[in-house]
Amino acid sequence: MNNFPIAGIRLASIAAGIKKNNKDDLVAIEIAAGSFVAAVFTQNAFCAAPVVLSRENLQKRTPRCLLINSGNANAGTGQQGIDDARACCEWVAKDLGCGPEEVLPFSTGVIGENLPLEKFLSAIPTLLHKLQEEAWQPAAEGILTTDTRPKLRSRQIQIEAETITITGMAKGAGMIMPNMATLLAYIGTDANIEQTLLCQCLQYAVQSSFNKITVDGDTSTNDSCVLIATNQSNMHALSDVHDKNYILFRNAVSELCQDLAKDLIRDAEGATKLVNIVVSGGRTVEECRDTAYTIAHSPLTKTAMFACDPNWGRILAAVGRSGVEGLDANNITICLDDVLIACQGGRNPEYREVDAQKVMDKSEYTIAVNLGLGECEAHVWTCDLSYDYIKINAEYRS
Amino acid sequence: MNNFPIAGIRLASIAAGIKKNNKDDLVAIEIAAGSFVAAVFTQNAFCAAPVVLSRENLQKRTPRCLLINSGNANAGTGQQGIDDARACCEWVAKDLGCGPEEVLPFSTGVIGENLPLEKFLSAIPTLLHKLQEEAWQPAAEGILTTDTRPKLRSRQIQIEAETITITGMAKGAGMIMPNMATLLAYIGTDANIEQTLLCQCLQYAVQSSFNKITVDGDTSTNDSCVLIATNQSNMHALSDVHDKNYILFRNAVSELCQDLAKDLIRDAEGATKLVNIVVSGGRTVEECRDTAYTIAHSPLTKTAMFACDPNWGRILAAVGRSGVEGLDANNITICLDDVLIACQGGRNPEYREVDAQKVMDKSEYTIAVNLGLGECEAHVWTCDLSYDYIKINAEYRS
Repeated sequence: MNNFPIAGIRLASIAAGIKKNNKDDLVAIEIAAGSFVAAVFTQNAFCAAPVVLSRENLQKRTPRCLLINSGNANAGTGQQGIDDARACCEWVAKDLGCGPEEVLPFSTGVIGENLPLEKFLSAIPTLLHKLQEEAWQPAAEGILTTDTRPKLRSRQIQIEAETITITGMAKGAGMIMPNMATLLAYIGTDANIEQTLLCQCLQYAVQSSFNKITVDGDTSTNDSCVLIATNQSNMHALSDVHDKNYILFRNAVSELCQDLAKDLIRDAEGATKLVNIVVSGGRTVEECRDTAYTIAHSPLTKTAMFACDPNWGRILAAVGRSGVEGLDANNITICLDDVLIACQGGRNPEYREVDAQKVMDKSEYTIAVNLGLGECEAHVWTCDLSYDYIKINAEYRS
Repeated sequence: MNNFPIAGIRLASIAAGIKKNNKDDLVAIEIAAGSFVAAVFTQNAFCAAPVVLSRENLQKRTPRCLLINSGNANAGTGQQGIDDARACCEWVAKDLGCGPEEVLPFSTGVIGENLPLEKFLSAIPTLLHKLQEEAWQPAAEGILTTDTRPKLRSRQIQIEAETITITGMAKGAGMIMPNMATLLAYIGTDANIEQTLLCQCLQYAVQSSFNKITVDGDTSTNDSCVLIATNQSNMHALSDVHDKNYILFRNAVSELCQDLAKDLIRDAEGATKLVNIVVSGGRTVEECRDTAYTIAHSPLTKTAMFACDPNWGRILAAVGRSGVEGLDANNITICLDDVLIACQGGRNPEYREVDAQKVMDKSEYTIAVNLGLGECEAHVWTCDLSYDYIKINAEYRS
């Protein structure tokens, strides 16, 4: 897959010694003057120090640089955490010749430990010296924690005969139930688009992608998603939400985010399956979504996915405890891909377990539940719960 | 531990071939005339056929017999499931010479399979022939599924110089987040107590015991808890909720249920820890309880418990995503037993990880969170998430 660079965005990655495995753990993304930047952050009430500071700085100026470290979340660190994040921004700003409020800090890793500041201080000059347009791949590797592989996607569209590029990367393998954005995702484009519309575009894209995935229901303290438009193309700047070129652009960004979101689930901690849970027939989208999350978070449905076991009773039990009012077992249907398992309060008389087995043996499939109450629908992507999830999370700090 | 029999209750257990492992899987509990019976059932919207029928029969007559099978939940079985449960009740009634509505059926095991009726038909006469007062132990074994050991508790109290006995058994190892009662629990007493007060007593006891435990957040379709008072003692029947003897009795029943509830968690699927999660400082009991469940259901806190890893950032993150309004990290405290880990938005300066490690190495301990918002409190008992939970649930049907 091609990783098209974006004119106006330069990246660098370095091993600063924050992670214990000697891999890259400090990344800078430099943004050319004249760009616009939109961002969304975690809804966790205890958001990390870098999230607090990034939100604050975004209000003041358009960022010129993002500084991202893996290996330490700088969360649960009180005032010290804020001071540390601010110091890192100042060091970057000094080197780049911009204001400290033009730098946004991001962190991911263990919660509750202070940043090893001296490692940042000594690594930052070398890091910034390495900045180049072609470095999306090493940057996508530098932001990883328990991920086993980088997630990097790129696509191009035509607007006004111009080739517009969108490239994005993401990380995150556990503590994933994004609520506004996933752990860390950075998307760049050379498209020309006004600031307000860029924010709207990001909201739309995140809603249809990162906000529809869950690994373990644990919303991180550090979730952040950033969309950078460098405006370096030769198109007219997008400014109208109804413009067909905006729709084209917005859909491309959304699809890229969906690709990244699914990549995150495919590489989730211990995951062997990508399962799309579609709940239809609800009276509201909310009750469909709640039911989908109940199925997606049930350890019993997740272990059945891992075992490739069409134990559909666990899906039925999860729907039954989802809190939806007025459920009637006689009106529910449950399908695995196109295999109808349950209807009219019991097993479909024509159901053969061998058919469901074939679906569950696949690495990606859909569980579709119809609640029989209305016309609304929602879906979430999730993964199974395996031995390796336990292994990874029991051994994470050791 | 003594398992005191209850005058007026006879039990029997047999291997009817419903379970694949040749162990006992069919249990009868005969209740003498003149007894009162109270019961609570699952709040899962798709409750199993035996739950539907037991609720129905309880409205009509005081039960004379409970018939309990393990190995098959008779849930998700539609009208056939109801017909099958009714047939079993009729066979028992015919043998005992009572009405079919005086028999309550209970089932636990795999969801979505029909009962093997012929096995019930051939086993029931032998089962009922074996009824005896001393059979609590084999009965407690006959109701098990993935449990590794029976849960049986007994205690005696003095009322009006009479020795009153309370004996109870329970089963349940997975799909445990009871919502009114746990999977299956049967408590008998020879105390004299009026029907209405017996119901109130059961509600009170369940609220303080089975409704405070969670293994995996999955509420079963078959949860049932039954309290039988045979009224065969020589005391005056308890009839006043303010009577000190009633309080004495109610507390004894509650404590017995708490012992059984904790036994369930100790033997939960794959569990190596019994953790009491206490959330105080909330404005309402509900927000404390929601927060406690968020911690108890977080796969990340559960795997940290399994690993004996004082990774308290995961607890902080879980509290932060619990949805409580107005949380301020500066006012939260987190303790492991008496070790204060976090306060004022960060780690307690005097905290030493070695102290927290000592607590987490224990098999039973308390995680105490204060939200700093009010005076309310709630707690839940839970267990860790281990390799064996995955193993048991990935292999359950195979």
